[in-house]
Amino acid sequence: MVKSRLSFKFAGCLVSSLILNLLFIINIYVGGQWNLSWSSRAAAEAEAVAATSCSGHGRAYLDGLVVDGNTEPVCECNACYTGPDCSQYIPHCMANADGGDPLFLEPFWLQHAASSALVVAGWHRMSYSFDGSTYISKELERLIRKVHALVGNAVTENRFIIFGTGSTQVLSAAAYALSLENSSSPAGVVASVPYYALYKEQAEYFSSEKFKFQGDANAWKNKSDTSTNMIEVVTSPNNPDGRLNKVILQGPNVKTIYDRAYYWPHFTPITAPADEDLMVFTLSKLSGHAGSRFGWAVVKDENVYNRMTIHMQLSSMGVSRDSQLRAFKLLKAALEGEGRELFDFAYQTMKTRWERLTRTLSLSKRFSVQKINPQYCTFYNKFREFSPAYAWLKCEREEDKDCYAVLKEAKIIARQGNRFGSEDRYVRLSLVRSQDDFDILIKRLNKLVSEEDGAKIM
Amino acid sequence: MVKSRLSFKFAGCLVSSLILNLLFIINIYVGGQWNLSWSSRAAAEAEAVAATSCSGHGRAYLDGLVVDGNTEPVCECNACYTGPDCSQYIPHCMANADGGDPLFLEPFWLQHAASSALVVAGWHRMSYSFDGSTYISKELERLIRKVHALVGNAVTENRFIIFGTGSTQVLSAAAYALSLENSSSPAGVVASVPYYALYKEQAEYFSSEKFKFQGDANAWKNKSDTSTNMIEVVTSPNNPDGRLNKVILQGPNVKTIYDRAYYWPHFTPITAPADEDLMVFTLSKLSGHAGSRFGWAVVKDENVYNRMTIHMQLSSMGVSRDSQLRAFKLLKAALEGEGRELFDFAYQTMKTRWERLTRTLSLSKRFSVQKINPQYCTFYNKFREFSPAYAWLKCEREEDKDCYAVLKEAKIIARQGNRFGSEDRYVRLSLVRSQDDFDILIKRLNKLVSEEDGAKIM
Repeated sequence: MVKSRLSFKFAGCLVSSLILNLLFIINIYVGGQWNLSWSSRAAAEAEAVAATSCSGHGRAYLDGLVVDGNTEPVCECNACYTGPDCSQYIPHCMANADGGDPLFLEPFWLQHAASSALVVAGWHRMSYSFDGSTYISKELERLIRKVHALVGNAVTENRFIIFGTGSTQVLSAAAYALSLENSSSPAGVVASVPYYALYKEQAEYFSSEKFKFQGDANAWKNKSDTSTNMIEVVTSPNNPDGRLNKVILQGPNVKTIYDRAYYWPHFTPITAPADEDLMVFTLSKLSGHAGSRFGWAVVKDENVYNRMTIHMQLSSMGVSRDSQLRAFKLLKAALEGEGRELFDFAYQTMKTRWERLTRTLSLSKRFSVQKINPQYCTFYNKFREFSPAYAWLKCEREEDKDCYAVLKEAKIIARQGNRFGSEDRYVRLSLVRSQDDFDILIKRLNKLVSEEDGAKIM
Repeated sequence: MVKSRLSFKFAGCLVSSLILNLLFIINIYVGGQWNLSWSSRAAAEAEAVAATSCSGHGRAYLDGLVVDGNTEPVCECNACYTGPDCSQYIPHCMANADGGDPLFLEPFWLQHAASSALVVAGWHRMSYSFDGSTYISKELERLIRKVHALVGNAVTENRFIIFGTGSTQVLSAAAYALSLENSSSPAGVVASVPYYALYKEQAEYFSSEKFKFQGDANAWKNKSDTSTNMIEVVTSPNNPDGRLNKVILQGPNVKTIYDRAYYWPHFTPITAPADEDLMVFTLSKLSGHAGSRFGWAVVKDENVYNRMTIHMQLSSMGVSRDSQLRAFKLLKAALEGEGRELFDFAYQTMKTRWERLTRTLSLSKRFSVQKINPQYCTFYNKFREFSPAYAWLKCEREEDKDCYAVLKEAKIIARQGNRFGSEDRYVRLSLVRSQDDFDILIKRLNKLVSEEDGAKIM
């Protein structure tokens, strides 16, 4: 009886153990994710780096600095944090609100690690061209059209799409493509003040005989000289002030580049699908991957598209296939499910940041920011406020002519108004940077505003 | 007794089963490569695509076309092959010997799948800059210096290194940087015939007031006009003919860009570490990754380096961090062990190709190719033949003035001599393309040569 009971127990254990064996075998040979071969070393490497603790105030990267003695890359800390694990706050550091580094979207990708991870084989797309003929991934082009269709921010049917190394390269390609061939005088490139400095800087730097920067578009509005060819860059939403700018110049000799970098629900109500002749977009302000240097243009005219293609060929032989693959994987991840998650995350983050900024500045008489009336957003099917990427801050006091200096004194790095062709009474504050940068900016602004009365008494 | 023996058997089975379980557990939790989390989906996806059979005459890519109904990307077949698995040879297709697609190195990376695989996290380097200040990965820069030191082909100590979107962008950055600021007349860009067409095409396309293409360097050799600023591009080894070109123009108003793209043991004896003021290199001709668009310059003068940095900023805000990460991983893989494997593979492949080409053309009186005397190679510590990336083929018959047409008739696509500022009696044949392309080229050449006598009799 005792033995029999023992046998039963044995049998029970054996069955359980065999079932466990079977489960392991199934996991290994059928589960799919466990039977990796050549990619497993790289995957383990990437996961190890990603697991490095940087206290939420920094990040370790695969190609990050390796300090002698270590085998793993070190933490790269956000501004105002330091130490091997970025845990030490630097009390009197400057709040950086200068560049448009779109790190506000980083948490989204940390939350979507599995769908956005990418494995690149050593032999991936070594060739100059896709299928022997083009510099452009057709599947990526298809995803881009899908994103525009989902958001409803641009018409892409029967339009050409061309890629560039960031919208930076796309913009110069557009300027070259819209300049007349064999024209005796260069086309004038203009933009309405305040404008994104790059248009001016590029035109001046390239010193091309094909085009020259000619300043504020408004200054050319009523000029009778209709023989000059003009290229107007319309930034809509505008950088720095977020307004949905419209074209200023019209006529047979005017061509237009619509910089639509910020025309996403993150920053603005989507009022209608944009349908201009030449529209420029960038991954940077859509997914937050500024570092990938991936931009595109949606182009109506085949001739302009062909000329832009030549530009891409002669200046860089197209866009890195690695950037294209990355953009492909990121957009594919963003479009999973109903494809609204990225936009909801981005909009909520920007909305919250604007609420905090507005709350801070509501107490101030010294500083004001742009006010734009809410508009109906076809993406969210409701009236909504603008939540621009940048605050266009004005120093209201007569004596505060150099607003940049006023902020610098308060340990805030802004971008000077004159960089945008505007007065230095204005500065641009970037609201799209990391949460750390934004938090410190608000902290410094709160302090500055709270000192206003005291300052007045002084 | 029976029961007892049964119990024994049970116990034996149980122990075996438990041991097996233990082994599984060890594998999963200690083995390292099996406990992946967020990267496993992407890894499985990449391995599935890589396992697609394309008969050795094509390849499937992660971002390849997905045909309706399928979930996996389709095979992209090499020229002259077709069918869903690229197994069908297209009998009368054209042999493509045109572009410099360096696919001859693809087998190396297939053989080094594990060390060259790369896993990119969704949040990898979203920022514009590395550590808030630069567009350049310091670790990649370090690897580049290491590769140069290993090969002994360039002095990099106390030199600046700048990255570009392929050597294409680096070359234009160099031309802009070496042009004088505020000069009343543009600098003249020259190169000795035969030269790589891009120098001319870029200068003409950009139409900058800073520089103009002025043709053959030899034509400027004895000009007394020393007031003109000149920029000579010295391609060494030369594209198209593989010669170790030296500078032609000298004097206080001459600046030089050394295009060192082909200065690797693959193509040429390494005669000494190059130590010119401005040397241009590219991943394309080192590792074969043309598609990654990654090039660099080694620069002596800090001012020139700074001006090139401004060029990179204004034309593309630096090089894609994805390209940089890829280059980092590939060079890291290439440097594993003693770091000579890549070079041995590349040299052997080119050597074998040249032997086959030479054998084929040795029977011909109609065609000849460049002959370069062997030189001592400090990398291999021996005298060795050149094995250039291109054959610079001459049609010797008086009537064969259009060598391109002669070859086209024989179903070979070459590149016309006039593209290199030379006569059309010459063409360039690319020898760095895929094995399929090379095999078909040799096949067509063999046929052409074997028909020579027949043709003569006619």
